[in-house]
Amino acid sequence: MQLIFLGTGAGRPTLERNVTSIALQFPERHNRFWLFDAGEGTQHRLLGIKRLKLSKLDKIFITHLHGDHLYGLPGLLTSRSFIEGAGKLTVYGPPGLKAYLDGIMDISEVHLDYELEIVELASEKMEQTVLEDSFCRIVAMELDHRIRCYGYRIMESPKTGSLDLEKLKRLGISPGPEYGKLKRGEAVTLKDGTVIRSEEVLSSPKKGVTVTILGDTAPCENAVKLAHEADLLVHEATFASGLEEKAAAYGHSTITQAARAAREARAKCLVVTHFSARYAADAVERMAEEARSVFGNLHAAADGREFAIPMDAAGED
Amino acid sequence: MQLIFLGTGAGRPTLERNVTSIALQFPERHNRFWLFDAGEGTQHRLLGIKRLKLSKLDKIFITHLHGDHLYGLPGLLTSRSFIEGAGKLTVYGPPGLKAYLDGIMDISEVHLDYELEIVELASEKMEQTVLEDSFCRIVAMELDHRIRCYGYRIMESPKTGSLDLEKLKRLGISPGPEYGKLKRGEAVTLKDGTVIRSEEVLSSPKKGVTVTILGDTAPCENAVKLAHEADLLVHEATFASGLEEKAAAYGHSTITQAARAAREARAKCLVVTHFSARYAADAVERMAEEARSVFGNLHAAADGREFAIPMDAAGED
Repeated sequence: MQLIFLGTGAGRPTLERNVTSIALQFPERHNRFWLFDAGEGTQHRLLGIKRLKLSKLDKIFITHLHGDHLYGLPGLLTSRSFIEGAGKLTVYGPPGLKAYLDGIMDISEVHLDYELEIVELASEKMEQTVLEDSFCRIVAMELDHRIRCYGYRIMESPKTGSLDLEKLKRLGISPGPEYGKLKRGEAVTLKDGTVIRSEEVLSSPKKGVTVTILGDTAPCENAVKLAHEADLLVHEATFASGLEEKAAAYGHSTITQAARAAREARAKCLVVTHFSARYAADAVERMAEEARSVFGNLHAAADGREFAIPMDAAGED
Repeated sequence: MQLIFLGTGAGRPTLERNVTSIALQFPERHNRFWLFDAGEGTQHRLLGIKRLKLSKLDKIFITHLHGDHLYGLPGLLTSRSFIEGAGKLTVYGPPGLKAYLDGIMDISEVHLDYELEIVELASEKMEQTVLEDSFCRIVAMELDHRIRCYGYRIMESPKTGSLDLEKLKRLGISPGPEYGKLKRGEAVTLKDGTVIRSEEVLSSPKKGVTVTILGDTAPCENAVKLAHEADLLVHEATFASGLEEKAAAYGHSTITQAARAAREARAKCLVVTHFSARYAADAVERMAEEARSVFGNLHAAADGREFAIPMDAAGED
């Protein structure tokens, strides 16, 4: 998986940072990708990244209905209608999302050329399953913000192990239907009657990765639960350390509070984002350096910055 | 006055053109400016033009409620709330505008720090006065589009003439209260009893300029009426000449139809904009060259391009 930050600023755009949107792309799934939040100008950012084609976007997850996470959604949905080959798109988000989109599309008379499904999450503090299929399971929990806000935990299913081709050759099994059987965990009987069990030639399934992407939040228990041992945690860090009181007043976190959440959750890697417009890039780097004393594997997001998950698979871009 | 094109594309943004927004700035009025339409990303474009500060924006005119003219409005209004010294802002537009903004701001819990006035135009084909003050009069008329759409005609009031300082000196009148009286059209009596009438020392009032900015439209009578002898007409030209049928189907004009409207209205200058995403800059230039056979003083807008009004005052940027 690849995480691409399209907008990393809080509240309003600046020349350096757009408002929030994050793309999660799956190179192994024909470059399909999902978006988490869609602040104004998200579709403009996508135009600049050739491999993120709107036709490949099939799910959008909205964390909360504040404008800096939401106002790019109607334009993006409309523009996607101009794209050939754009199939069904599902948007997940808080209650109110459907009224928001229906109201806008009704007044501006939008008629989409593809199927749009809007799924509103339940309004409850407990963990809820957003989506479950062969590829992954996604759960959401409410965080602690001024407005109802969710965090998402994406858990990739284990990947089937790989066949030991050398051993198969030695055993005299050539590529063919037997390979499929063994890969599916079934046994194969050779002509001489020898039974080859799958586990003799197939490596153990590889654990899938877990990514946690949180919306805006003050420090809270659910943030830590969602991030439990995640390969990568995206946590907001609107303010610098020392501004805890201001952060609390607005339902946000400081960068040190984000680092503490990652440490408590035993996440493997933390990417902080959603910086107040007051911080230029160098200020963010100083904040990050300071917060690394709390959680070492901390990275500051920037518009256009990419991260491979797990990071040791391909390193940071 | 200065006209600055912030977005000149139709329907959806491309790397070359953003969706529609036009700024009309008044250098002689402390750089205050107005916007005509606010497609998504308008506030991002403003960030790149230092002299267009959100605190100086006090009126926005929306031509119609299609997303490519409208979806940047909520974010722009919200961001303006972060700006110190931002006073009252008035947004004019079609019926439905208030429901659109109220719906969005309610769902995303926006609380503006300034007074926002929303004025919905009457739904009628006849000319209506949008605004009248000492600086100008603005009228609107409905055009011919798929959705209710207006064109705006901004008529600057005549500017007071200037005093003949040489002559005043010869007459022995020094700068002081008499200057004010003469400028206001009143007479002044000298110590020796001589009466100096205002018109002896004040040049004739200078005619104000007239600018017509139309929303999306198929060729129609009201477009020509609004553009009557305008110093500058902004007319859409979504399609190239030859695509009249397609243009009609979508309630748009070809570039040649725009040129014909300018010729019929005896406008002094025509700026065409709102080009379909299918046309790159060189294609637009070829289209413009062809349409100049119909109306010679035709210019193609481009994002960031500026025009002085009247053009002969300072020429084109």
